[in-house]
Amino acid sequence: MSEMSGMSGVSDLRARAAALDAADALRPVRDRFTLPDGVVYLDGNSLGALPAHVPGRITDVIGRQWGELGIRSWTESGWWEAPERIGDRIAPLVGAGPGRIVVGDSTSVNVFKAVVGAVRLAGAGRTEILVDATTFPTDGYIAASAARLTGCTPVPVDPADAESFRAALGPRTAAVLLNHADYRSGRLHDLPALTAAARAAGALTVWDLCHSAGALPVGLDAHGVDLAVGCTYKYLNGGPGAPAFLYVAERHQAAFDSPLPGWNSHAEPFAMEPEYAAVAGIRRGRVGTPDILSMLALEAALDVWDGVGIEAVRAKSLALTDFFLECTAAYAGLDGRPLTLLTPERHEERGSQIALGCAGSATAVMERLIARGVVGDLRRPDVLRFGFTPLYTGFADVERAAAVLAEVLVEVGAGAPVEPGSR
Amino acid sequence: MSEMSGMSGVSDLRARAAALDAADALRPVRDRFTLPDGVVYLDGNSLGALPAHVPGRITDVIGRQWGELGIRSWTESGWWEAPERIGDRIAPLVGAGPGRIVVGDSTSVNVFKAVVGAVRLAGAGRTEILVDATTFPTDGYIAASAARLTGCTPVPVDPADAESFRAALGPRTAAVLLNHADYRSGRLHDLPALTAAARAAGALTVWDLCHSAGALPVGLDAHGVDLAVGCTYKYLNGGPGAPAFLYVAERHQAAFDSPLPGWNSHAEPFAMEPEYAAVAGIRRGRVGTPDILSMLALEAALDVWDGVGIEAVRAKSLALTDFFLECTAAYAGLDGRPLTLLTPERHEERGSQIALGCAGSATAVMERLIARGVVGDLRRPDVLRFGFTPLYTGFADVERAAAVLAEVLVEVGAGAPVEPGSR
Repeated sequence: MSEMSGMSGVSDLRARAAALDAADALRPVRDRFTLPDGVVYLDGNSLGALPAHVPGRITDVIGRQWGELGIRSWTESGWWEAPERIGDRIAPLVGAGPGRIVVGDSTSVNVFKAVVGAVRLAGAGRTEILVDATTFPTDGYIAASAARLTGCTPVPVDPADAESFRAALGPRTAAVLLNHADYRSGRLHDLPALTAAARAAGALTVWDLCHSAGALPVGLDAHGVDLAVGCTYKYLNGGPGAPAFLYVAERHQAAFDSPLPGWNSHAEPFAMEPEYAAVAGIRRGRVGTPDILSMLALEAALDVWDGVGIEAVRAKSLALTDFFLECTAAYAGLDGRPLTLLTPERHEERGSQIALGCAGSATAVMERLIARGVVGDLRRPDVLRFGFTPLYTGFADVERAAAVLAEVLVEVGAGAPVEPGSR
Repeated sequence: MSEMSGMSGVSDLRARAAALDAADALRPVRDRFTLPDGVVYLDGNSLGALPAHVPGRITDVIGRQWGELGIRSWTESGWWEAPERIGDRIAPLVGAGPGRIVVGDSTSVNVFKAVVGAVRLAGAGRTEILVDATTFPTDGYIAASAARLTGCTPVPVDPADAESFRAALGPRTAAVLLNHADYRSGRLHDLPALTAAARAAGALTVWDLCHSAGALPVGLDAHGVDLAVGCTYKYLNGGPGAPAFLYVAERHQAAFDSPLPGWNSHAEPFAMEPEYAAVAGIRRGRVGTPDILSMLALEAALDVWDGVGIEAVRAKSLALTDFFLECTAAYAGLDGRPLTLLTPERHEERGSQIALGCAGSATAVMERLIARGVVGDLRRPDVLRFGFTPLYTGFADVERAAAVLAEVLVEVGAGAPVEPGSR
């Protein structure tokens, strides 16, 4: 195949990208973000980009609300209600009704509340906690601690293998802690079926939505999920280390028994009573004083969702990852020389990221990619991770990322140009 | 006594205030804060005032570190090390060496880590947790939860009564959770003696420093405290809901066994290992991803301490509260008609706040005080709380607060002008 036809293949994909961008109804949402010049940012699954109006909002929060109003802002600026108010903003993105999500603390702390809470809701006699064996490690560490403190045993399970998962469930199963999308491979697990299987066994589900909240529909209420946690600094763009969230299904709220019953979850927090009495509703998931600066940065960041539906985001996410696979296959190959696709190709098994195995040269490749303005990240030892945030990522970005990836692979001696049309 | 001599009494105290301010070596530190015009801010024990340079620093954190550098800021902007770096900034204010304080999470979450950690350090066979009966309630709630999860029993104690405190200690005592300064009365407890008594009984101490960190010397290392927690939004001016801190004495760090072993406390956090292995040192007190915006606002806020010693702050604090008592006695009386002094007069028993009982009219009095620019707060049903932050409170502020308080008491029909010199 001649060099010219190779160029023509690139031109074809570039033209396709331009057409896809022109037809993209979400394209104008990109202008709601401040993106670094000349960068293709494919790391929104690690740290979401900065919404353009966040700096101005935080200037007001610090200068006026804190600096001028001071303590009065707890009532006058709505600081006190922020955790549930912001929870209600996240709720439609994950299919939850109002009053079911509270924002605050880290994901790890919320996993602890949720797992201990689930074990207590499951009742006596159930002493096993099934834990996604390929989970982001903090979930496993925290689940092990929750098990130790509640007299339970953690049992690893593979949510991608429905048969073994069902076999692990039984009358001793108290709770099941699963990831909706795997942080490493990008595999999307079957939340409706796994939740139903756990429920049929009398166990409660705790879903970790870190890699799905804001990327795709979750349907927490519709699928009867019991508890869920998620982070807000990935696809929800809340900023570095932004507070996480906790979902408790309405049917469980009255009996939810938090292992972290801080004063903010008391029925009468300002009565300063020596005996604890849990408040009704989702505020019961709070612990201490909410972290206002980070919380209100997140609230401002959620404005980028005005008029944006999560179904449209999901459709664009799949189109972006499909196109990335197409471009990468054309430019660099996905046949293991050296790139291997780790993310499932089936849409129903794919989150909003693509993970590529790149044995032996992943570190060098990612360093060069970042140096050339294509920002993904690395999961050691050899996984290149690319997250696709439909709110600010376009198809031309995707084509450029694949093209630069192919060039970099050649530079590091790990790849050879692939002739378009040869696969 | 004639009206004229009454006026002259006021003039005397005003002249005294002016002289005290003129002689105050900490006076220039006030300019490091943005204080609302015309306000006497005596609520720094609830929410510290805004350090003037915080807004500019956070603009840079959001716009450049997050917006431009993005994920690279975890290394390039020092985000990753922030919890221990900022802990080391707080350390000298509470008498801790470097590497003993980690910042993050809320006070309540840190109380949980510390109390469960203390019970585990105490070893098997010790099953009682002594808890300050007049504590800020979250400490009691969390201690009760920690007791429930570790098979212990919480036992109330009165740290102001050394004899009964010693009597409560015994071979079953695992841990003792105490407040350094009582949030309501402002009473300062005898940290060295109570710590020594607990140690003599083989129990570990957990001190809550919320109302002493940044207000007076604590001497954690010198007095052999085992664990401590504190908040940073009061006398450390970190902003609303700013992250709290955890102190673990160096001798306990290797055995400290956190009930919240999140991935940030793993020895190799980025290896994403399925098995937990605790890191050495104080980073073991971390849980999840640190809340960077709030964390770096706190770091900026700590710059106001440059060149300021905690001993000088304590000396001024006592001078301020002494002068407030003198002015209040002169202008409004402290004889129960209606004001009653709840804070101990002895310096060694006094924190940095004055609590005044005001039966029947406290709510109305505080509302009017705030409306007239004297900002304290209310602890229901009948306590007026005034916090004195030496970094930005002057003696003229104190005199004005007492004068307005006396006027307001007359307005609400609760007080009568006191003739100067009559007490």
